[in-house]
Amino acid sequence: MQDREARVVIVGAGFGGLTAAKTLAKAGVPFVLIDRRNHHLFQPLLYQVATAALAPADIAVPIRAVLSPGRQKSHIEILMDEVTGIDRTARTISTQGGATIPFSHLILATGSDYAYFGNEDRWAPHAPALKSLDDALNIRRRVLLAFERAETTSNVALRQRLMTFVVIGGGPTGVETAGALAELARATLARDFSNIDPRTARVVLVEALDTLLNAYPRRLGAYTRKKLEQMGVEVITGRPVEDITTDGVLLEDRSILTANVFWCAGVKATPVGEWLGVETERNGAVRVGPDLRLEDDPHIFVIGDASSVDDESGDPLPALAPVAKQQGRYAAETIIAEARNHPAPDPFRYRDWGTMATIGRAAAVGKFGKLEVTGFPAWLLWGAVHVAYLVGFRNRLSVMLNWLWAWVSYAKGSRLITGPDEAAIDALDSGRAVEAELDKTVTNLEER
Amino acid sequence: MQDREARVVIVGAGFGGLTAAKTLAKAGVPFVLIDRRNHHLFQPLLYQVATAALAPADIAVPIRAVLSPGRQKSHIEILMDEVTGIDRTARTISTQGGATIPFSHLILATGSDYAYFGNEDRWAPHAPALKSLDDALNIRRRVLLAFERAETTSNVALRQRLMTFVVIGGGPTGVETAGALAELARATLARDFSNIDPRTARVVLVEALDTLLNAYPRRLGAYTRKKLEQMGVEVITGRPVEDITTDGVLLEDRSILTANVFWCAGVKATPVGEWLGVETERNGAVRVGPDLRLEDDPHIFVIGDASSVDDESGDPLPALAPVAKQQGRYAAETIIAEARNHPAPDPFRYRDWGTMATIGRAAAVGKFGKLEVTGFPAWLLWGAVHVAYLVGFRNRLSVMLNWLWAWVSYAKGSRLITGPDEAAIDALDSGRAVEAELDKTVTNLEER
Repeated sequence: MQDREARVVIVGAGFGGLTAAKTLAKAGVPFVLIDRRNHHLFQPLLYQVATAALAPADIAVPIRAVLSPGRQKSHIEILMDEVTGIDRTARTISTQGGATIPFSHLILATGSDYAYFGNEDRWAPHAPALKSLDDALNIRRRVLLAFERAETTSNVALRQRLMTFVVIGGGPTGVETAGALAELARATLARDFSNIDPRTARVVLVEALDTLLNAYPRRLGAYTRKKLEQMGVEVITGRPVEDITTDGVLLEDRSILTANVFWCAGVKATPVGEWLGVETERNGAVRVGPDLRLEDDPHIFVIGDASSVDDESGDPLPALAPVAKQQGRYAAETIIAEARNHPAPDPFRYRDWGTMATIGRAAAVGKFGKLEVTGFPAWLLWGAVHVAYLVGFRNRLSVMLNWLWAWVSYAKGSRLITGPDEAAIDALDSGRAVEAELDKTVTNLEER
Repeated sequence: MQDREARVVIVGAGFGGLTAAKTLAKAGVPFVLIDRRNHHLFQPLLYQVATAALAPADIAVPIRAVLSPGRQKSHIEILMDEVTGIDRTARTISTQGGATIPFSHLILATGSDYAYFGNEDRWAPHAPALKSLDDALNIRRRVLLAFERAETTSNVALRQRLMTFVVIGGGPTGVETAGALAELARATLARDFSNIDPRTARVVLVEALDTLLNAYPRRLGAYTRKKLEQMGVEVITGRPVEDITTDGVLLEDRSILTANVFWCAGVKATPVGEWLGVETERNGAVRVGPDLRLEDDPHIFVIGDASSVDDESGDPLPALAPVAKQQGRYAAETIIAEARNHPAPDPFRYRDWGTMATIGRAAAVGKFGKLEVTGFPAWLLWGAVHVAYLVGFRNRLSVMLNWLWAWVSYAKGSRLITGPDEAAIDALDSGRAVEAELDKTVTNLEER
C-alpha cells in the first residue's frame, strides 16, 4: 500500500455508499471506496435469485464497472477489503488486508444483517437468511436439492418434510419469497418429476405479529394474505418462532416438520457502533444528527440501515433503499459544499415517493402517500420501477427479458445447482443418512 | 427407492447422453437418466464463463427442464446421483446414494476429465482445469481476485506475478481461453483500476508440441498463432511443462513466475473401464465395436469421450460434441429398433460437418472437409453455429444479446466474484501472506 493522503473514505457499496461515490465522482472529489465484495447488489430482487427466477449477473454489477476509476479525472480508489476498526483520534481506518487508511471525511454505509434474536448459533445453520449473492445461491441449491431428494426417497415422512418450505417473517422479503416459492413449486417445477408432484409442496409463511407487511396500511396486509392463500401459501400470523432445529420449526401451538426454513425476520445494523465506540439503538443502528453526522464528530457520516435518524414526525426513517440513496447523496453534497466553501445544505429530509412489495404473478401492493394500489396495476408498476432502478443498461434488458419470458412460459431460467460437488452430494447424502433416524426424531418433535 | 423394472439406463447428461435421452423420449421408450449434476452444460462455451463474458445460466439448462418427465407419455426418471459401480452379471448399477438400478440396456456417456500426466496431486491445486460450471466460477474468481490483489500491493514482484496468466495447452480450449484472457485484460478491465494498468498483464500460452491446434491443418495453427500474438498473447510451442508450483511454471529453458495457471491440456476418460472391468486405451477410453457396444456384451453401449472407435480410415474419432451427439442418437435408435423387432441399423459412421475454434474478437478458424476458413467470416460462422446449438430458446437469446453487447461495448457482464466470503478473503490474504516470502521463493525458482 502506498503512503496515502487523507481523502474521503466510503465504507460499503450498497445503495447509500454507491450513490455517495457517484455524487463525489461527478464533482471531481477524490475518494476511496471499500467493500468486501467486488459488486454492488440490487438487494430488493435477491429473493428472485434464491428462487431461480433471475441469475446473479442480472442483479449485480461490478463496482469497478460502475465507477471506472481509470476513466475519472480525479483519483478514485476502490478496495476490495474488510474494515476491522476505526481510530477516531488519528482519523484512520484499518482493514483485514493490513491497510491503514487516513480519512478527511468518512461515510459509513455498511447496511444491515439478519438478526436471529440472540439465537444465531442455534438457528442460523437451519434457517439461512438472504443477504448476499452467495446466500441466494445457497438457498437456491437447498430448494432444488430438496425436490431432487424428495424424488428419490421412498420414506413418506422424509418426502413430506423435504417438500415443506417455511419462510419466517411477514415483511416484504418474506412475502415475496413465500410467493415465489409457491410459484416455483406449483408452476415451474410442476412437470419436472416422475415420482413426486411438486404442486403438493407446502409453503408456510410465519409472522410473529398479527398482520403481514406491518409497515403498510392494514388493508394491504389483509389483501396480501388473501392473495398468498389463493396461491396456496399457508399464512400463520401472531405466532413467534420458539425454536428451529434440524426437524423443523416450533411455534407456541404447533410444530412444522420441514427440512427447509428461510429467515426473513429481524434485522440488525453491522458493527459500526462498535468501531466508533458509541451507543447504538436496539437494532445496532448509530444515532446521527439531522445532518447525518455523529453529534460530536463532523467528519463522520453514518447513512442507510447502519444509521438511525427521525423524520419530521419523530418516527425513525425506515430501512429502505430510497432512504439510503437520498442519504448517500446528501452526505456527498455536504462534503462537496465544504470543499468549495459553500454553506452546508439544509438538514436531511427524506422524500417518500412510496413503497411497494410484490406477492406473485401479477399481484403486488403499493403505498404512495395516501394512495394505496393493489393487484395487476401495482404489479406492473412494481416491475417498471424495479427495472428502471437496476444499475446498468445490460442488466435492465436482461431482467426484462427474463421476466417477460418467465411470465409467458412459467419457465425459470436459472434453475442450476452449483457449488462444490461435495456439498451437493453431501446434501443428498445427509438427507439419506437421516432417513433411518427420521421416524424417531419426528416423534420427538411431535411430542413436544 | 421403489422396486424397479429393468429399463434403459443412461449415465451422463452431456451431449451424448442427453441426445440419447431425447431420442428415446420421442419414441416413447422408458428410461432412467443419471447425472451427478442437475444441468446439462454447453461445454464449448465454458471458457466464456471463466473469463466473465457469459453467466452460468447462459450455457447450462436444467436436465429436468429439457426432458420434463412429468409431461412424457412413457415413464422417464431423472436421478441426480453418482454411479459407483456396475454389476455386469446381475445387470445393475449402484450409486453413491445407495440405489441399485437394474438395466435392460446401458448407455455409458460419462465424458472425459482433465489429466495432469500423473501429476494430479502436485499440479492440480495450482493449475485448475475447466470442466464444470464450478470450475469456471472458481477460475473467474481467481482471475478477478488476481487483479484486485495487484491493485493493492506495493510489492512490484508480487504485482507482476499476479498479473501474469499462463494457459497450458494449445488445443481449442487453450487458444480460446488465452484469447479471452487477453481481451479481458486489454479491453474490458482497461479502465477499472487506479494503481495498475490491466493492459500490461502478461498472457502466456504454452504448448508441448510445435504447433497450435494440432487437430487442424498446419496453416490454421500458424494463423492462430499470428492472431494471438497480435492480441498480445505470448505463444510458446515445443516446450512441455516440467513442473508447476505456487511460484509458477517451469519449462525446459525458462520459468514463468505467475500466480495464475490454467490447465487446458491432457484429457482422460472417466472410470468407465474400471466399472466394466475391461481394458482401456491409454487415455482411459473403452474400446467398442462399430455398433458402439462392448464386443462381448450387446446390452452395454459406450459413447462420446468415454469410448474409443475408429473412423473408416482407421483413425480414432475425435473427442468432439458432434461425435457424442451422433453416437447418442445411434445408440438410442439401436435400442428402439430392438424394442420394435426392426433390424439393427448399419454400423455407426460419423458425419463430419467440420470443426471450428475461436481466437478472439472477430477472429476464428474453421475446417469443413477440404475447406479452411479464417478471420471474420469464420468468427461469424462460429458465433452462429454455437448460438444455434445452445439448448433452449431463452439461452440462445440471452447469449446472443450478451455477445452483441460485449462486442459493441467491450463490457463483460458477469464480472462477479462469488463464493464463500472466507474463500475470497482467504485468497486475498494468502496473497498478502506470501508477500513477505516472495522474494526468497522467486529467487529460488529463478536459480533453477
